[in-house]
Amino acid sequence: LIDAIERRLGQRGGRVRRSVGDDAAVVDAGGSVAVTSLDSFVEGVHFSLATHSPADVGHSALAAALSDLAAMGAAPGEVFVGIALSSEFGEQRALELIDAMEALAKRVGATIAGGDVVRSPALSVTVSVTGWAADAGDLVYRDGARAGDLIGVTGRLGGSGAGRLLLSGLRADLSAGARNGLVTRHLRPQPRLRCGRELARAGVSAMIDVSDGVATDAGHLARRSGVELCVALDRLPLADGVIKVARAAQRDPTELAATMGDDYELLVTAPPNVRARVQRAAGDGDSELTWIGEVGRGEGARLIGAGGKDVELQGYEHR
Amino acid sequence: LIDAIERRLGQRGGRVRRSVGDDAAVVDAGGSVAVTSLDSFVEGVHFSLATHSPADVGHSALAAALSDLAAMGAAPGEVFVGIALSSEFGEQRALELIDAMEALAKRVGATIAGGDVVRSPALSVTVSVTGWAADAGDLVYRDGARAGDLIGVTGRLGGSGAGRLLLSGLRADLSAGARNGLVTRHLRPQPRLRCGRELARAGVSAMIDVSDGVATDAGHLARRSGVELCVALDRLPLADGVIKVARAAQRDPTELAATMGDDYELLVTAPPNVRARVQRAAGDGDSELTWIGEVGRGEGARLIGAGGKDVELQGYEHR
Repeated sequence: LIDAIERRLGQRGGRVRRSVGDDAAVVDAGGSVAVTSLDSFVEGVHFSLATHSPADVGHSALAAALSDLAAMGAAPGEVFVGIALSSEFGEQRALELIDAMEALAKRVGATIAGGDVVRSPALSVTVSVTGWAADAGDLVYRDGARAGDLIGVTGRLGGSGAGRLLLSGLRADLSAGARNGLVTRHLRPQPRLRCGRELARAGVSAMIDVSDGVATDAGHLARRSGVELCVALDRLPLADGVIKVARAAQRDPTELAATMGDDYELLVTAPPNVRARVQRAAGDGDSELTWIGEVGRGEGARLIGAGGKDVELQGYEHR
Repeated sequence: LIDAIERRLGQRGGRVRRSVGDDAAVVDAGGSVAVTSLDSFVEGVHFSLATHSPADVGHSALAAALSDLAAMGAAPGEVFVGIALSSEFGEQRALELIDAMEALAKRVGATIAGGDVVRSPALSVTVSVTGWAADAGDLVYRDGARAGDLIGVTGRLGGSGAGRLLLSGLRADLSAGARNGLVTRHLRPQPRLRCGRELARAGVSAMIDVSDGVATDAGHLARRSGVELCVALDRLPLADGVIKVARAAQRDPTELAATMGDDYELLVTAPPNVRARVQRAAGDGDSELTWIGEVGRGEGARLIGAGGKDVELQGYEHR
């Protein structure tokens, strides 16, 4: 549907540098460029009030939108929030939701500058965020990956997915602290804003945030760049506790980490000559970077499992 | 709730010139200022698929958001659309919705630059629009009305409300053409973008779009400006057919025009010395302006009916 929508849209005014198809749109504002992304979070689809507090909902909705700015290498700016409130949700919980958004906005230096509050049969939160850069050339897009580039990912994967399984009732052989860490990873994702800017400065050729899972997001990046991303599944950095949760769920830990999404880490490609610089940049951004594969001349994402065999994995897209 | 939200929000980065509380937020982008507004449209609350086609929904959602830019005197720029689709709505109807948005965007020179498509129990459309101006001083806000200013309104009122009553099944003594005109007024509102810019240039002191009805919107403007807006109800310019529809609905036509909202005309205040210039500006913006009252030293909106008596009217707010 998004492809069909994209084909129907024209551009006017000469300010739009990038629109549908990347993590965010880029608009030339004269002295600087505005980077904007909009995301919707719907009760029963993206979260459940059985597991998410109002504060978790507010935090997650804003974190997901900010993560798109991180994936462009933009500095966060303004936030606009549309809250559709079901009648049973109530004003007090709406304010708890806003307070959590405001706390995250404050921590990353963003301003909630407007929005809309309406009634609705189901709770949903739509967040539009605008970030800023001095020049469109300072940003990183999904279409810059080239054959021969290395593929890297920040942080560790699978933590959010494992947390989601635990919240849905799965019992695993974990300490209270380990369980809590995974659940927090799911309920309070952290957008890698500083890391995204450092990686952009270090010269990564393409970048996307891992919201749908590496399996799916590598495919998005490959398609936009017209290349093949070959990812070695055994090199994926797994979050602590993911192996135990996967065992309890009778799933392969790597498959869980590659497909459950919501980790909001950054997936990058980089020419081999900036390898060391990119790795240092991730450290400067308070993260770590793991090299997980290489860009080839084919198309789409190719996931390579044990013994060098291709693996088919289904991530979840656009819930 | 919006007041409570506003009190909880801080500002960062030094770019935000105006945030919650006006028609749109104003952000300094270096060489120019970005003006952004976000609006949500929910099935069963703001529209019904029994009366609105997918194209009507798309058009109305974008028109309402663009109307906020008109009320600031900003030139339209970029549009971001969040569509939450119920499973029965389907892809074909989603594309009809988008096509109508794209047609309106094209007509006013705006670009749909991004968005999000998600599943949802109910259809809803959230639109974030960004407009542009060279300088924050070129825009018009809600807080500039001063005692002694005149109050004016563009176009004619009550047409959208009358159209809504007809769509809900009311029978009135109207020609097919007159009925059609009122229904179109409701299903396809036209944002007064050019008129808003002309009025801003002509020196109006405050401006707001009439989305909740003059009774309510005059109150918003009065409250933000710290003044009283005295509106003579018998001076309200009524759309053709409103009197007949009001008669059929056993309502007072003026009360209908002042409270049913969704006309998306512009309510302005202006110092008496620019009266003629403002009136000409409305004409240059392909509209007409009617003077309907005066700004006083009190507070809130004061609606004056037949015989100079105060009238209490309840508009609808933030559905």
